[in-house]
Amino acid sequence: MAEKNVLLTIAYDGSAFNGWQRQPDLRTVQGEVEKALEILTGETFSLNGTSRTDRGVHAYGQTASFRGDIKVPVVNLKDALNNILGTGRKSMVPSDIFIKDAREVPLDFHARFNAVAKTYIYKIRIGKEPDIFKRNYFYEVRYPLDLKLMKEGALILMGTHDFKAFQSAGGEEKESTVRTVYTMDMRRIREGMAFHITGDGFLYNQVRIMMGTLVEVGLKKISPENLKEIRDSKDRAKAGHKAPSEGLYLAKVHFSML
Amino acid sequence: MAEKNVLLTIAYDGSAFNGWQRQPDLRTVQGEVEKALEILTGETFSLNGTSRTDRGVHAYGQTASFRGDIKVPVVNLKDALNNILGTGRKSMVPSDIFIKDAREVPLDFHARFNAVAKTYIYKIRIGKEPDIFKRNYFYEVRYPLDLKLMKEGALILMGTHDFKAFQSAGGEEKESTVRTVYTMDMRRIREGMAFHITGDGFLYNQVRIMMGTLVEVGLKKISPENLKEIRDSKDRAKAGHKAPSEGLYLAKVHFSML
Repeated sequence: MAEKNVLLTIAYDGSAFNGWQRQPDLRTVQGEVEKALEILTGETFSLNGTSRTDRGVHAYGQTASFRGDIKVPVVNLKDALNNILGTGRKSMVPSDIFIKDAREVPLDFHARFNAVAKTYIYKIRIGKEPDIFKRNYFYEVRYPLDLKLMKEGALILMGTHDFKAFQSAGGEEKESTVRTVYTMDMRRIREGMAFHITGDGFLYNQVRIMMGTLVEVGLKKISPENLKEIRDSKDRAKAGHKAPSEGLYLAKVHFSML
Repeated sequence: MAEKNVLLTIAYDGSAFNGWQRQPDLRTVQGEVEKALEILTGETFSLNGTSRTDRGVHAYGQTASFRGDIKVPVVNLKDALNNILGTGRKSMVPSDIFIKDAREVPLDFHARFNAVAKTYIYKIRIGKEPDIFKRNYFYEVRYPLDLKLMKEGALILMGTHDFKAFQSAGGEEKESTVRTVYTMDMRRIREGMAFHITGDGFLYNQVRIMMGTLVEVGLKKISPENLKEIRDSKDRAKAGHKAPSEGLYLAKVHFSML
């Protein structure tokens, strides 16, 4: 009975998942990884994921920890789980989860409570015609965007603010809606642009509402001055639309104690 | 009663289709486009596709013609069909077909019989670890490939030959298994390589078996000299494996009369 605490780093293509969180009768990332753990060990483990990504949201580096008396050596866990998750690769539901890393962590470590920052990437494709091969992986915008204005807008969303205007209803009631966005880098990519956004934490749908609002800045529907007013209004009704889940990637979770 | 003949150029992501050809109770590209035509016009039309691509095979430019007394102006057909095919874009089965072009063609034109050549692209990703975002779109090879040997091999597969060794059972019995491969260009891409293959026609699974065999050349399991013997043997058992459908794209159909 040697209890261990294991931290998994997980990449997934969110296209065919009903999000991260386990739900009865629905295909979720947490559900699939827990199922693989049960197939591997014959026992049930409950994952604590860092972020409950919504349906359609992708991850390059979601993290999740679980505790238990797992008999499989942790050093073998990555390959063993990937072998199980990879079954049916050529079937209509190919493997869309990849365990990138599995490591033992101190018993008091928790993937959610010990996360000090998260980096998301949001990808926008600009094109008059759709690219069906990109449909699940980008926010497709049909009109040209003013990148200079969007950069200005991004600066307004950086820093420590009450981000209540950029929070969807339906999330957990948080005590505080103040968060810090450390960086919000706009990078040109072949298809259009990608924003790399790092913050100490994000409200429910914050990244998607910030991005939808920034797209409206790029379309010149909202000026950077307006954006500042929107931010300070703390009024969701004033902010822009919620950008689609397809463009969002949980890229990296930053921990203090690892 | 003005009969028209219409040629569609169609792109699709083959991942979630049971191939091109209409089948009862299975989702196929032909079936979806015919359904969209029926929704649009209230009448049934039967598409003649140029190539019956297999399950999982993609297309940048499949072509299909249909004849009939279609009342919708052909100039509106592209947008009208895309609007229908695009419904449910944000659902779990988003639109994975895009009509790139619709045009009227002479009444005696047929998308299959008037095709004089086809260009396929086959994409290979080389990487020690899988990239889940690429799983449906590349042949993932885990070991390094000798590109120089593969280029040599490609030359052996170019030209006019009896390609019987590279034909799967289960295709139509063809009178002749002689085909001409005009070009077989290997191009470096970010993920690995892409072969652009143009020929006057291809036997059943010919491109995939040629590619699987070329990968074995790259892995040094088959030498270029062996490849020549395999080609001339006309014996499927001597050739390499059939490369997976995920890497294959029908890129372009070439017509004589358009």
